[in-house]
Amino acid sequence: MEDGYVNIGKRLPRVDGIIKATGEAKYAADLSMPGMLHGKILRSPYPHARIINIDADKAKRLPGVRAVVTGNDTIGFKAGGISARGDEPYLALEKVRFIGDGVAAVAAIDEETAEEALELIEVEYQELPAVVDPVAAMNEDSPLVHEHAPRNISYKTDLSYGDVDKAFKKCDYVREDHFETASIRHGFIEPHAALASWDLSGKLSFWGSKQSPYFTYRNMAKALGITLSRIRIVQPFIGGGFGGKNEMFDVDFSSALLSRKTGKPVRIVVSQEEVLFAYRQRHPTIIDIKTGLKKDGTIMAVDAHIIADGGAYLSIGAMSLYLMCSFLCLPYRLPNMRARGYRVYTNTQPSCAMRGHGVPQSRFAAEVQLDMAAGEMGLDPMEIRLKNALGPHETTPNGFVITSCGFEESIIEGKKVIEKWRKDRPKDGDPNIKRGIGVGCYGFVVGPRVAGHNTAGAVIKVHEDGGVSLMTGSTDSGQGSDTALSQIAAEVLGVRLEDVRYGMVDSDITPVDPGTYGSRVTFITGNAVRVAAEDVKNQLAEVAAKTLEANPRDIRFKDRRVYVAGSPERGISFPRLVKIAQYSGAGKTLLGRGYWAPEGLKVVNLETGRGNMSATYSFGTQVSEVEVNTETGRSKVIRMAMLHDCGTPINEMAMEGQLEGSAIGGIGHTLTEEIIRKDGRTMNPSFLEYRMPTALDACNVEILHTDTYDDVGPFGAKESGEGIQVSVVPSIVNAIYDAVGIPFKKIPITPLMVLDALKDKSGK
Amino acid sequence: MEDGYVNIGKRLPRVDGIIKATGEAKYAADLSMPGMLHGKILRSPYPHARIINIDADKAKRLPGVRAVVTGNDTIGFKAGGISARGDEPYLALEKVRFIGDGVAAVAAIDEETAEEALELIEVEYQELPAVVDPVAAMNEDSPLVHEHAPRNISYKTDLSYGDVDKAFKKCDYVREDHFETASIRHGFIEPHAALASWDLSGKLSFWGSKQSPYFTYRNMAKALGITLSRIRIVQPFIGGGFGGKNEMFDVDFSSALLSRKTGKPVRIVVSQEEVLFAYRQRHPTIIDIKTGLKKDGTIMAVDAHIIADGGAYLSIGAMSLYLMCSFLCLPYRLPNMRARGYRVYTNTQPSCAMRGHGVPQSRFAAEVQLDMAAGEMGLDPMEIRLKNALGPHETTPNGFVITSCGFEESIIEGKKVIEKWRKDRPKDGDPNIKRGIGVGCYGFVVGPRVAGHNTAGAVIKVHEDGGVSLMTGSTDSGQGSDTALSQIAAEVLGVRLEDVRYGMVDSDITPVDPGTYGSRVTFITGNAVRVAAEDVKNQLAEVAAKTLEANPRDIRFKDRRVYVAGSPERGISFPRLVKIAQYSGAGKTLLGRGYWAPEGLKVVNLETGRGNMSATYSFGTQVSEVEVNTETGRSKVIRMAMLHDCGTPINEMAMEGQLEGSAIGGIGHTLTEEIIRKDGRTMNPSFLEYRMPTALDACNVEILHTDTYDDVGPFGAKESGEGIQVSVVPSIVNAIYDAVGIPFKKIPITPLMVLDALKDKSGK
Repeated sequence: MEDGYVNIGKRLPRVDGIIKATGEAKYAADLSMPGMLHGKILRSPYPHARIINIDADKAKRLPGVRAVVTGNDTIGFKAGGISARGDEPYLALEKVRFIGDGVAAVAAIDEETAEEALELIEVEYQELPAVVDPVAAMNEDSPLVHEHAPRNISYKTDLSYGDVDKAFKKCDYVREDHFETASIRHGFIEPHAALASWDLSGKLSFWGSKQSPYFTYRNMAKALGITLSRIRIVQPFIGGGFGGKNEMFDVDFSSALLSRKTGKPVRIVVSQEEVLFAYRQRHPTIIDIKTGLKKDGTIMAVDAHIIADGGAYLSIGAMSLYLMCSFLCLPYRLPNMRARGYRVYTNTQPSCAMRGHGVPQSRFAAEVQLDMAAGEMGLDPMEIRLKNALGPHETTPNGFVITSCGFEESIIEGKKVIEKWRKDRPKDGDPNIKRGIGVGCYGFVVGPRVAGHNTAGAVIKVHEDGGVSLMTGSTDSGQGSDTALSQIAAEVLGVRLEDVRYGMVDSDITPVDPGTYGSRVTFITGNAVRVAAEDVKNQLAEVAAKTLEANPRDIRFKDRRVYVAGSPERGISFPRLVKIAQYSGAGKTLLGRGYWAPEGLKVVNLETGRGNMSATYSFGTQVSEVEVNTETGRSKVIRMAMLHDCGTPINEMAMEGQLEGSAIGGIGHTLTEEIIRKDGRTMNPSFLEYRMPTALDACNVEILHTDTYDDVGPFGAKESGEGIQVSVVPSIVNAIYDAVGIPFKKIPITPLMVLDALKDKSGK
Repeated sequence: MEDGYVNIGKRLPRVDGIIKATGEAKYAADLSMPGMLHGKILRSPYPHARIINIDADKAKRLPGVRAVVTGNDTIGFKAGGISARGDEPYLALEKVRFIGDGVAAVAAIDEETAEEALELIEVEYQELPAVVDPVAAMNEDSPLVHEHAPRNISYKTDLSYGDVDKAFKKCDYVREDHFETASIRHGFIEPHAALASWDLSGKLSFWGSKQSPYFTYRNMAKALGITLSRIRIVQPFIGGGFGGKNEMFDVDFSSALLSRKTGKPVRIVVSQEEVLFAYRQRHPTIIDIKTGLKKDGTIMAVDAHIIADGGAYLSIGAMSLYLMCSFLCLPYRLPNMRARGYRVYTNTQPSCAMRGHGVPQSRFAAEVQLDMAAGEMGLDPMEIRLKNALGPHETTPNGFVITSCGFEESIIEGKKVIEKWRKDRPKDGDPNIKRGIGVGCYGFVVGPRVAGHNTAGAVIKVHEDGGVSLMTGSTDSGQGSDTALSQIAAEVLGVRLEDVRYGMVDSDITPVDPGTYGSRVTFITGNAVRVAAEDVKNQLAEVAAKTLEANPRDIRFKDRRVYVAGSPERGISFPRLVKIAQYSGAGKTLLGRGYWAPEGLKVVNLETGRGNMSATYSFGTQVSEVEVNTETGRSKVIRMAMLHDCGTPINEMAMEGQLEGSAIGGIGHTLTEEIIRKDGRTMNPSFLEYRMPTALDACNVEILHTDTYDDVGPFGAKESGEGIQVSVVPSIVNAIYDAVGIPFKKIPITPLMVLDALKDKSGK
């Protein structure tokens, strides 16, 4: 009875599975309150313009309109990401800086009236010259998006370790390449939505689709000029985020401002069209990278120059830029590295974090260039990776400390997959169909320390019939963390997953938490849950020890039974013990609390930083096989294998779902997805024209995890899914390279690009 | 800076004052959910009948009707009060036992359709002989309301201390009297209302107007046959309870059952008419009491025989009966006491707890009889009370242990009031207007232990800007406890009341609590809040000690500042300290938890019990002056003085509100309020005809509290308001006795009764 887990590592259905599959789960847009008004946001039609005057009189007179607010109704607060001064008002002040910038918001009795009112707001603009290309933006004579930023440089990172110039001189092989990545979108299914209700006691209740509700909690207080204890943020279900719902937006602020003005609850739900043209994107980048190797394939030096198109506001871009640069040091040994990054303001939609956060862009360049080098040097892409792979207990030159690490094993497993696939490959077929196999590798953070507050908290209440309620400050934006955290609580307390109820964030009561980013929830909040569960367990063990006449240290909890170690017959049921603990003598409600943050992490200086930002790192190898149709130029991913070190998985089924999501997402990023703009205007603001992959674009995904156990992770777990997002794109690009001999350095790789490249190649 | 409280003992407005006064506060009937259905309950038209058949086909076919449920749709669970087997199904099984008994419930798209559907339900009844008089009910040949209870006795209490028969023989004066009290009602303004929503994950969320939500939590699980962790009880504001909302009712159960059946949220709001004829009442009683005294006024013995009309079901009647009997021992020294009580089933609406819970009935008899004895013996009513008054550190023969006690002082103060009033009295006036002054005294419990679980819990979260969230499992049904508890938290943490936000019960997360009864919340939950606040304070003191370079024990918290004892200048602001504690180093969310229950209390055997049920007792003296118009028979209360020992008040203003409520309530109970029934049918189910007092019936109330400090109570507090409800009625009856020389032994005292008695008297 004492061996093996009851909940951990099992293929258990998600706790929110049924409720989401049946449509019962309530998202922000599903919420409704008596007397509720509907809001809409007026957006800038110009990429860059001065606001001369806003006349909302006609709009206010429209029957059914209850209020109109503009930047003039605010206290002028400007949001800004980490380590940055604020530059982004929630409703425009003086200037608009991109097409879609929020200018005014209307509350009316229904959405149609609010829409109609938008058209009646008369805004007098003075158009300004716009800059939409990041390279042009850096010219001395370019128009300035923000007056405080010369050459439109919103952030600059300059990392340098070892002696790069000297190292290059010693290399046997050096190459330089130019890479470009497009504007891509998070692609969450649930659009931004917010419901705000200001009661007459002066308290604001807010429901919104937020990955990090405590960011909204703080910024709402600052933007409204009220104290935090007057704000209650309640978290409904979240329909995907991927980094695009970390920040507070105009939709959130406007709902609160309009509710304060009208004294009624106000709900604003933006359209997917608005999401696609007026909200966040992944940073488009232009990467020049130079790599030097010894002839045996040892990587000696990397020198990179990165321009990241930040769009109109800083957002969290300082961190994005730092990650782009610093992750050139992972997952391969790299003694000498230099990376200069420039995040540039343009008059386009702002860039922010997105699954992988900055790392996918630079690793796409590095991994593809590595295959090009291997190809020219006559080395096997797997062998060159194996040779340079970081292992346990190594420290990168920028200070990342590797602890548990199954990277080498993942490459070895990847080699086996490739051998097997090459054997499998159909001998005959359409001569226009070229097959190729490519590889990409990654190392990724597991709950990085990015600012002051990194600690997670958990509160557990054990009900008198043995049921367990669990609260944390973390959110499940779809990644399955509510399930993983519930499994951890269940295992520690010796109950079953179905005994645990996860309660979503309510800032009045749940512990403060930074939120969902950087693959932190299972690892950091999971540990807080473990500590909280142990706290309750210890309280119960004291009572059990009395009842069972044993030492508290000898009490075991498993599968709803509590017994003396070594004597499973000397036990009682968990519900019975809870009842005794709650009702006998000085019995009391069983409440456990736990806090946890990794020790010794550094808040890294993002401009020049060196230091360990993550308590552990995940690793993995991604293998993809493609078919390229040389007649149509179309590339199709046939199969994938993901071989990753996520520590010990908490829930294999949920973990696989995360990996499959990254796999299919990566297909889109490599082959189809791209926001196309003309003079700052988004030309394809719909999923159909943006070309998100659908189920028909999916392929078979084999998943293998190397068996590591992380000493710090809860039950040995690290992260899964986000890290491997990094290596999917280069693995597909490298597979196309393998298929047709052309290394593409710009994504997405469209059929036209393939046909053009084939023509160029055959023309040579 | 170190002396005096910032929050405690101040006249602070209630935390829910504005929101309630403006109508913003949401009560259960105000809640609404998308897709919500409306429910109605079909009630028995017979006082006693067998259900032969229920045909709901026509009702179900009515357009807009979504479901009909009856007892056959239940698992047959029967609710019952403390120490009792269940006897009360939430929807009738086999029999109906009073006019108003719930028989079926309907859910429809609106209330009108649900009402219409009720009329289409065809119930075939077989009428049974009914018994509506409790004395007749005890006859051997009376029809049985419940087959398990011979002579319809639902509960019997037989208390005996000392040697009563011997004591009577030694008395100089003995008298026997017969008293009767009427059916009166709690008179809360908000009717019973419930909203239940069953989600597809199998979890029930429930919002209802419940004083003790955890009673509903447990009974809901039992009645539906599901585990507790599948039930979430959320507490909206409560519009008064007074004991009438402690239990779970048909309205609560039916909303849940209909929601399960329809898959939609279902709300049921009953009418005030239904509240008055189909829900709970205070036990009507018939009390024969014999008291013996020495000629100096020393009370030697009491022998009482009490018949309490329990109505159709047991409810919490066993406890009511025990309290009626045992409180003959308080507030006067009584060496010999016997009380035999019978709680009798009749085919009328069930009786339960109501403000004072059982004590007002027997104390009415005892206090009025004491004045009659004093009158005949030529003793002053105040002197006889002073002579027999219990004091600190005495123990009553039934085991009540008195600790802090300002009873004697309250009588002395009462004497002063009477002297002053007699001087004030206008010399001339209408000869038909007779003035009189009467007194009544009381002792009352402060959080009695009535069953296993008596512990309260509190959780405090300190926000990063110094705001404080407080959660307990207790409810504020109007008594102001949310304010008192917030004041306690604020004072311990050294912040201000407006910094504290009180979060109402949510069974998923708040600590389990017995609820609001027996004047327990300020005393018991208040102590839990104190402990929780001290827990957070200690965490903060550790951080402050480091910051201020001092010993944690020397850190003081006051008025939003934290400083070193003796050196107020060595300090920082509370918000600053919280920020340091949360963000620096291993900083974490500040969560405090506290549990508290009085030590050494006994769960008393309600049939024969002896033992201390309350950690302390409140005391007081009530003086009332009346004018009786001998021409119209109408009595009017002119002024009142309440002199009470509530320990140290937490909030004088809130305390006075509680006392004024008891004062005006007592006027109604004495002079006007009465449910009039004919053959079991309520003839006056409206507040107008039931004659609740209005503002025009109110009088001036002087309030004086004796300065005791209870060592166990939070900041020295005990209870206020409920205890003095006990003495208001006899003080008015005694004042009428003083005015016209007639001691009335039946309440309410109607003008007709007065005229009849005056005629009888003058006829003698």
